[in-house]
Amino acid sequence: MNNPNSAAPEANKQRSEKDRVLIFDTTLRDGEQCPGASMTFEEKIEVAELLDDMGVDIIEAGFPIASEGDFHSVAEIAKRSKDSVICGLSRAAFNDIDRCAEAVKHARRPRIHTFLSTSPVHMKYKLQKEPQEVFEMVVAQVTRARNHVEDVEWSAEDGTRTEIDFLCKCVEAAIKAGATTINIPDTVGYTTPAEYAQLFRTVRERVPNSDKARFSVHCHDDLGMAVANSIAGVEGGARQIECTINGIGERAGNCSLEEVVMAMRTRGDIYPYWNNIDATMLTRASKLVSAVTSFPVQYNKAIVGRNAFAHESGIHQDGMLKHTQTYEIMRPEDVGVSKTSLVMGKHSGRHAFREKLKELGYELGDNSLHDAFNRFKALADKKKHVYDEDIVALVDDEIAQAHDRIKIVSLSVVAGTQGPQRATLRLDIDGKVVTEEATGNGPVDAIFNAIKTLVPHTAKLMLYQVHAVTEGTDAQAEVSVRLEEGGKEVSARGADADTLVASAKAYINALNKLSQKRQSVNPQTAAG
Amino acid sequence: MNNPNSAAPEANKQRSEKDRVLIFDTTLRDGEQCPGASMTFEEKIEVAELLDDMGVDIIEAGFPIASEGDFHSVAEIAKRSKDSVICGLSRAAFNDIDRCAEAVKHARRPRIHTFLSTSPVHMKYKLQKEPQEVFEMVVAQVTRARNHVEDVEWSAEDGTRTEIDFLCKCVEAAIKAGATTINIPDTVGYTTPAEYAQLFRTVRERVPNSDKARFSVHCHDDLGMAVANSIAGVEGGARQIECTINGIGERAGNCSLEEVVMAMRTRGDIYPYWNNIDATMLTRASKLVSAVTSFPVQYNKAIVGRNAFAHESGIHQDGMLKHTQTYEIMRPEDVGVSKTSLVMGKHSGRHAFREKLKELGYELGDNSLHDAFNRFKALADKKKHVYDEDIVALVDDEIAQAHDRIKIVSLSVVAGTQGPQRATLRLDIDGKVVTEEATGNGPVDAIFNAIKTLVPHTAKLMLYQVHAVTEGTDAQAEVSVRLEEGGKEVSARGADADTLVASAKAYINALNKLSQKRQSVNPQTAAG
Repeated sequence: MNNPNSAAPEANKQRSEKDRVLIFDTTLRDGEQCPGASMTFEEKIEVAELLDDMGVDIIEAGFPIASEGDFHSVAEIAKRSKDSVICGLSRAAFNDIDRCAEAVKHARRPRIHTFLSTSPVHMKYKLQKEPQEVFEMVVAQVTRARNHVEDVEWSAEDGTRTEIDFLCKCVEAAIKAGATTINIPDTVGYTTPAEYAQLFRTVRERVPNSDKARFSVHCHDDLGMAVANSIAGVEGGARQIECTINGIGERAGNCSLEEVVMAMRTRGDIYPYWNNIDATMLTRASKLVSAVTSFPVQYNKAIVGRNAFAHESGIHQDGMLKHTQTYEIMRPEDVGVSKTSLVMGKHSGRHAFREKLKELGYELGDNSLHDAFNRFKALADKKKHVYDEDIVALVDDEIAQAHDRIKIVSLSVVAGTQGPQRATLRLDIDGKVVTEEATGNGPVDAIFNAIKTLVPHTAKLMLYQVHAVTEGTDAQAEVSVRLEEGGKEVSARGADADTLVASAKAYINALNKLSQKRQSVNPQTAAG
Repeated sequence: MNNPNSAAPEANKQRSEKDRVLIFDTTLRDGEQCPGASMTFEEKIEVAELLDDMGVDIIEAGFPIASEGDFHSVAEIAKRSKDSVICGLSRAAFNDIDRCAEAVKHARRPRIHTFLSTSPVHMKYKLQKEPQEVFEMVVAQVTRARNHVEDVEWSAEDGTRTEIDFLCKCVEAAIKAGATTINIPDTVGYTTPAEYAQLFRTVRERVPNSDKARFSVHCHDDLGMAVANSIAGVEGGARQIECTINGIGERAGNCSLEEVVMAMRTRGDIYPYWNNIDATMLTRASKLVSAVTSFPVQYNKAIVGRNAFAHESGIHQDGMLKHTQTYEIMRPEDVGVSKTSLVMGKHSGRHAFREKLKELGYELGDNSLHDAFNRFKALADKKKHVYDEDIVALVDDEIAQAHDRIKIVSLSVVAGTQGPQRATLRLDIDGKVVTEEATGNGPVDAIFNAIKTLVPHTAKLMLYQVHAVTEGTDAQAEVSVRLEEGGKEVSARGADADTLVASAKAYINALNKLSQKRQSVNPQTAAG
């Protein structure tokens, strides 16, 4: 229990192939299917590119049969993939598997992930099938998938509540049929470290051909133990971890990628396992996923929360050196935490702006760059300091609005304690300018009422949230709005120095997103 | 691995005293000392009363020597305590211990918790003392505490990085000197389940008088394993868990009370441990702590996040029954999740309002009730549906403002895309009405600029955040503002149907809170 300050002891570690753990990220599948976390096509591409750059071994890009939109985003991610394996999810039906194969086929390294429930409660209530039928489906689904690709993962959904003899029987058959990865998910977040480690030991001992496949863990955090369970599974012999950025996912979410990676790395003295993740990109990945889903990261979230590194709070700077040695087990820079830096001002030119964008990870086309630069100049005129985060918000907002049918021409609002509050809004809808004046219960309500008159819709507001992008009262505001219509939820953002303008933008962006959203199958039927 | 749906198998459990685990809540001490989480006197009292009602065995109410404010809140919580043991924290110095004793003495069951660092890195850099000196201080500090009270807890700070022989020597001496509880904290969030369990086994085996004390776990979540580590410590023989509501605390926070309680309960089939927590109060406790600290709970937080119970999202209600049996391991009602209910309207009378408040856990004096009722009527006039959450926000706002020197008389704002945005604010400061008109970069900036002119101060805005209290565009807005001045941070809320009015209220509430805040010692030097 020494080694308090070295966050990367594994740099000096003997890296044997048997201790390598593959990192399988399912932010775009298990993460995206949780209520309110849906992402647009462009957002999914952006997340996938970051994951690929970060060294994620397998990216589960979506559930192709779920919708046309899911299919196209998986296919596009496959086409653009660099080093990562691109994986699609499918149920046991052949058309489901074929559709998945079609989506991933252009990846340099395609994978089909096909799953089936094996627990008594799932077989009885969800599948309404007898175990023998389920067993035959396992063989059939894996065989079908192997006809398309060589890299096939099979998951025993609700594996931790599956009867052990039946689990071993299915795993053996799946491997025989050609599955190269066997995932035993803790679908309901029910297991404990000792139990999960033992499960892998038992299955690997009892299944005769278990050495022919790589075993995988997939944990949910319902009892707060997803990270510990995942590592316990690895101790039991698994060598793939399924996880998501920020731990987003169904219910209490999935095992968090940044936590499980940093736990194994920080405790390299007792864990011999290693992986290929570039940890310095973890903070950026966390911020991107938080932004595109509008899911806030709690302040005390491990690794990526704003309080995760105490001295980042700006308090007790005097005791810094002491703290580093006495209270920190990881260095902030190891996970990519950088100080907010003053970088650009009203005298910064277009070239400097383009360079800054590159540094922040953006490459814009000439038109987008032109628009973004104009908005940057307008912001620099209004705002004393322009920080990296301001630029990120501005560019993200630009990207979000690039394909909008509806744009704001002007907005004026009168508000305060002497009601009613009044908003006058002028919109450009497909090139036609329309105007509406509305009152409401507060200025935001007035604005939203004006939008509702100009763009009639039945969506219900589920969430309205404002963040300050940077510190100070002149900070840009970033507003998140979540709308729900007929069981579909979308989230969208809008950024502006004026909270009310940002609110209008966010609501309009959400309406655009909602209209783009296509029919999809019930995501609750997906695995894991 | 059966029993998927019963959340309370322990109801049928043989409750033997040896399997009882005491729940020690340190939300008011380790939680409150994290940057930005400071609470007012009134807020601390409110939290302590809820914890006492919920069945928390020991409430660590604060660090009495840290400030006059801390002392008075610990003393008041001690006076009002019902069943819970009230505990104060102290370092090794005698005046520190004496001050702590003074604060807790009126509790029905007082405890002094005194700590000292025992790890090489802490002894060398933080204490700058030799081990032998530290050892003598342990004996002296426990002896001193026992002169005041019978219930004394001693913590070996940074216990998980302490050399095992020295740890055993200190533990033995502390017990001999009269410590009744021995806590071995994982101060830096560094340990793992197997390692932490083994640590308790080793210490309990090697320390001859270990059966004379109760052992305690105290885990931080830096590597995402605080819950698993805590339970592992219990498996190793500990019988007290130190934790906080929502897992708030230094850096990545502490073990989360709701998670560790529900994990042990849900997995009662393999964990024989039991505790006295009324789990149906967990959701209320989470909401209260989130509200008073302005720390949001992430959506996918286990147990208390808004997505923790999938079917609460309002989506896929059709598959509900199926889901309950196939995807849920706890019932929402077991942890106090209730549906938002339409309860009050503009025709509701004062009696009904008082009854509703009681149901929500509030008992207001006649004057406060009068004011709250008037505000309720005003809200009911403006807002179609008044939900429980609206009433809670309104009453919390009333309580927060009860002692304010500064009140808003009126506010009017002109905003929109045609800047500059302009705010005219009229305030009542100690009975004197003053007015200011200011412009700004957005309406909120304009309002804050007006406040800054009327109430000059040097505090810096660290956080500005808006939540919708309930669903719908006419929802009340609840704004959180965090200010920092000279290393001190305060958070405050304001609620109103108008976001801009709520913003002004929140900022002014924060200024009042800041002026009340007293000098305190560096909380980073506290234990755990």
